[in-house]
Amino acid sequence: VGAVLICTPPRTHAAIIERAARAGKAIFCEKPVDLDMKRVDECARVVAKAGVPFHVGFNRRYDPSHRALHDAIRSGEIGRAEMLVLSSRDPEISPPDYVAAMPYGIFYDTIIHDFDMVRWLTGEEPVEIVARTAVMLDVKENPHRDPDTAMVMLTMASGALVHINSSFRATYGYDQRIEAFGEKGMLVSRNHQPTSLERYDASGIRQDPLLRFFIERYAESYVREIGDFVDAVTSGRATSITLDDGKRALALADAAVESAKSGAPVAIG
Amino acid sequence: VGAVLICTPPRTHAAIIERAARAGKAIFCEKPVDLDMKRVDECARVVAKAGVPFHVGFNRRYDPSHRALHDAIRSGEIGRAEMLVLSSRDPEISPPDYVAAMPYGIFYDTIIHDFDMVRWLTGEEPVEIVARTAVMLDVKENPHRDPDTAMVMLTMASGALVHINSSFRATYGYDQRIEAFGEKGMLVSRNHQPTSLERYDASGIRQDPLLRFFIERYAESYVREIGDFVDAVTSGRATSITLDDGKRALALADAAVESAKSGAPVAIG
Amino acid sequence: VGAVLICTPPRTHAAIIERAARAGKAIFCEKPVDLDMKRVDECARVVAKAGVPFHVGFNRRYDPSHRALHDAIRSGEIGRAEMLVLSSRDPEISPPDYVAAMPYGIFYDTIIHDFDMVRWLTGEEPVEIVARTAVMLDVKENPHRDPDTAMVMLTMASGALVHINSSFRATYGYDQRIEAFGEKGMLVSRNHQPTSLERYDASGIRQDPLLRFFIERYAESYVREIGDFVDAVTSGRATSITLDDGKRALALADAAVESAKSGAPVAIG
Amino acid sequence: VGAVLICTPPRTHAAIIERAARAGKAIFCEKPVDLDMKRVDECARVVAKAGVPFHVGFNRRYDPSHRALHDAIRSGEIGRAEMLVLSSRDPEISPPDYVAAMPYGIFYDTIIHDFDMVRWLTGEEPVEIVARTAVMLDVKENPHRDPDTAMVMLTMASGALVHINSSFRATYGYDQRIEAFGEKGMLVSRNHQPTSLERYDASGIRQDPLLRFFIERYAESYVREIGDFVDAVTSGRATSITLDDGKRALALADAAVESAKSGAPVAIG
Repeated sequence: VGAVLICTPPRTHAAIIERAARAGKAIFCEKPVDLDMKRVDECARVVAKAGVPFHVGFNRRYDPSHRALHDAIRSGEIGRAEMLVLSSRDPEISPPDYVAAMPYGIFYDTIIHDFDMVRWLTGEEPVEIVARTAVMLDVKENPHRDPDTAMVMLTMASGALVHINSSFRATYGYDQRIEAFGEKGMLVSRNHQPTSLERYDASGIRQDPLLRFFIERYAESYVREIGDFVDAVTSGRATSITLDDGKRALALADAAVESAKSGAPVAIG
Repeated sequence: VGAVLICTPPRTHAAIIERAARAGKAIFCEKPVDLDMKRVDECARVVAKAGVPFHVGFNRRYDPSHRALHDAIRSGEIGRAEMLVLSSRDPEISPPDYVAAMPYGIFYDTIIHDFDMVRWLTGEEPVEIVARTAVMLDVKENPHRDPDTAMVMLTMASGALVHINSSFRATYGYDQRIEAFGEKGMLVSRNHQPTSLERYDASGIRQDPLLRFFIERYAESYVREIGDFVDAVTSGRATSITLDDGKRALALADAAVESAKSGAPVAIG
Repeated sequence: VGAVLICTPPRTHAAIIERAARAGKAIFCEKPVDLDMKRVDECARVVAKAGVPFHVGFNRRYDPSHRALHDAIRSGEIGRAEMLVLSSRDPEISPPDYVAAMPYGIFYDTIIHDFDMVRWLTGEEPVEIVARTAVMLDVKENPHRDPDTAMVMLTMASGALVHINSSFRATYGYDQRIEAFGEKGMLVSRNHQPTSLERYDASGIRQDPLLRFFIERYAESYVREIGDFVDAVTSGRATSITLDDGKRALALADAAVESAKSGAPVAIG
Repeated sequence: VGAVLICTPPRTHAAIIERAARAGKAIFCEKPVDLDMKRVDECARVVAKAGVPFHVGFNRRYDPSHRALHDAIRSGEIGRAEMLVLSSRDPEISPPDYVAAMPYGIFYDTIIHDFDMVRWLTGEEPVEIVARTAVMLDVKENPHRDPDTAMVMLTMASGALVHINSSFRATYGYDQRIEAFGEKGMLVSRNHQPTSLERYDASGIRQDPLLRFFIERYAESYVREIGDFVDAVTSGRATSITLDDGKRALALADAAVESAKSGAPVAIG
């Protein structure tokens, strides 16, 4: 065994990371690294000491459409990025047990991806966050009344403004869009659909709903991500998404929860 | 009265044209000029003798989307035009009396527009035509069993190939598309819709049906066409669509009917 | 003269309103009613006393695509509206004199339309606002360094969340989109383009940029709005957009400026 | 070895088929079965005698978008199919040696797929064909002056009309569209693109070119087709695409060549 892939529930990650690191294994860990920042720091120390490769599973970086957007920004196609708008909506809420085990999961489990995307796309860090949440699902679907709807506003170091929205009931499929507006234009990574069929009749023109959830929508990203991790480990080069990336995304989720609870904006770092 | 606009049924055109020409009026005449080529030739002589401005109402030339396609072809954007595909479908058949008065109206009343578009878009003449028709509507809708469905294949002087299709029952609205394929690329003038609304739900993504019929779809073209006619008449310049254009489109409709009846390809003069 | 249409710069509105009201004229006034809430209140008293019809020019309510979205929400098509996302971007900043005369014009002149749309679409009032701005244009384009980029987050009385973004340099045209997400689906009022032409070549598929600015994009809305105003005045029915609507949108712009300046969320009346 | 997959050049198929059949192997053979109808008949006899499973590789039947269109037609979604329009354009011509070995390859190698699609989609047979070709590529690209551009018109047994067009130089990628028009509406299987990115700037809105060629566009269809073949062989059920399907598509290609050469319509068996 040369590498360990950690795809278990979030609260189990830290212990496995430490054990794998001490055993000298390369580590691929699904986000979040852990829900407790102290444990993340402890993991970081253990991993650093062991000197093993570590990759956090922010798979969206490997989606071809999002990556094409990233590359277009970085190549200067829209000049300075001035505003980002991310829509990140799940078709359903997680089972009650899972929700109970991770309050504010909409930030720790879902929007944490978007926090990573914002950092990756812009190459800069946020300096302030304001978050608002709502409970929109009925009691049967969301018995713990944990937030199932959220909006976030970030201010980046450069002054660029970022909006993220999320929901746990996109009836039309897994809604995953990123829009980057800059001084020279706009880039939009649009949704994907299972087929390209259009149906015309007297009621209008109808296309397929969106791909249902992350397994379908991001299938290709997972293949590419694992390939990249294996390539990093076998070639000895640095992994593409570091434990520090995982830590910074978690810090943003923590700050979002703080803002959502207090109502006040929260300064980052 | 400086000009006469002839928007009456086709069989009444010729007499009005001759009367208006002899009275020295500028003439705007809806297509077709007449259904009988001899009468068209007589009209041509009378109009020529009177020296009055004459414009045939091929309004589609004035549609902004079709015109943008025309201008792109003419500016060389796709190099030589090698294939054209035109879809020209009405949402309904004309009333039985109208159909009875003009057999093969699908060529004389509808596809005649496409014949004109082909000549205008390519700037060249067809040398051969093959046409096929079908009767698809039921007896109640189409009691005279006149063709309500048609396909045409044209070969142009340059060797370019053209396809036109038409139907009298596009349930989803007035389907008006033109596609030009050339050595450097493709141009597509797509359909228009009343609003830009998209509706997403579990059954898919739904847009409006197409604009219902020619009045809605080509509203702007009619305004622009009349403006162009008035400008030609008042400025003294030549009209944009001549009686010869009307005659050539009619000749193609005649040839289409001949081919549809005999089954054989028909060479164009 | 039965009615006065006030389309002058914002700071001149109040005096004209009062004069017209005292003269017994029906009044159509472009937004904002005034930039000073006290003056708006004074106008409201004068207009009430005179008993003249009064219509505030929030033309976007008359855009066919936005109206179709409104009607779909109101008919229950997406159930409860849970999130709104509005993109409202101009292709250019106003001239320096105009900017100097109205600091934070991005709220008073542009986003004020979106504030009105949010109220009209949802049929409810916001209870909190957070706003952030940036100065992204260079000194030559924006010599007064007034905000040219903005994001707003609103919480509605029902708990629904709203995002609005705006910029004064959409290089690709006048970007006007509204998205409403609800328990049963999503509605999107998309942008409009001058033609439906698509151009395919080795570099990809290219469509027209968006319609350039409000004159082109909202041409139909202005026609419909004036028609509605005339109909209200001549029939004696109430006008569709009241002085109170104008006042509430202004109050939101005031609150946005307060939040942008202080950094804190601002509760709405 | 339980099965033989024949993916060699067309002229080598027949001998391999016969050898494999006599060896009792299940056979998957890329289209066309052979270019000579007599040899196809001989193969059919050998295969029948050997009683081995035989599948002709018409992979497009397995494309999810085309299949969704097929299923929608067959479920009656558009009622009777009245017109089909197929666009089937390659980004490049085959190498000169390959072209020399198979004159009129545009029918035998490319449009043969569309002939199969028409039969599969409608569930009926054509009764007449008219074909026209052109040589549009320059001498360097197409030294043998074999047709590189073609249009076909088919009349089906029911009277339905079909149009197919093809070219060997779609500069914008592999253009694969199918449109089915019926009494209740229209179905369109549109093209596919590598990413969903849209790029907006002053020159317009730009998307990716189409997927480059069949390997990219039909990757999923090949996987599904092999899976279906393996399933048929291992389960003992009949294969999905028979030698007779291959023969009928070849007969249509032969008839197309005859029509293209003579100019006359050709009746189908």
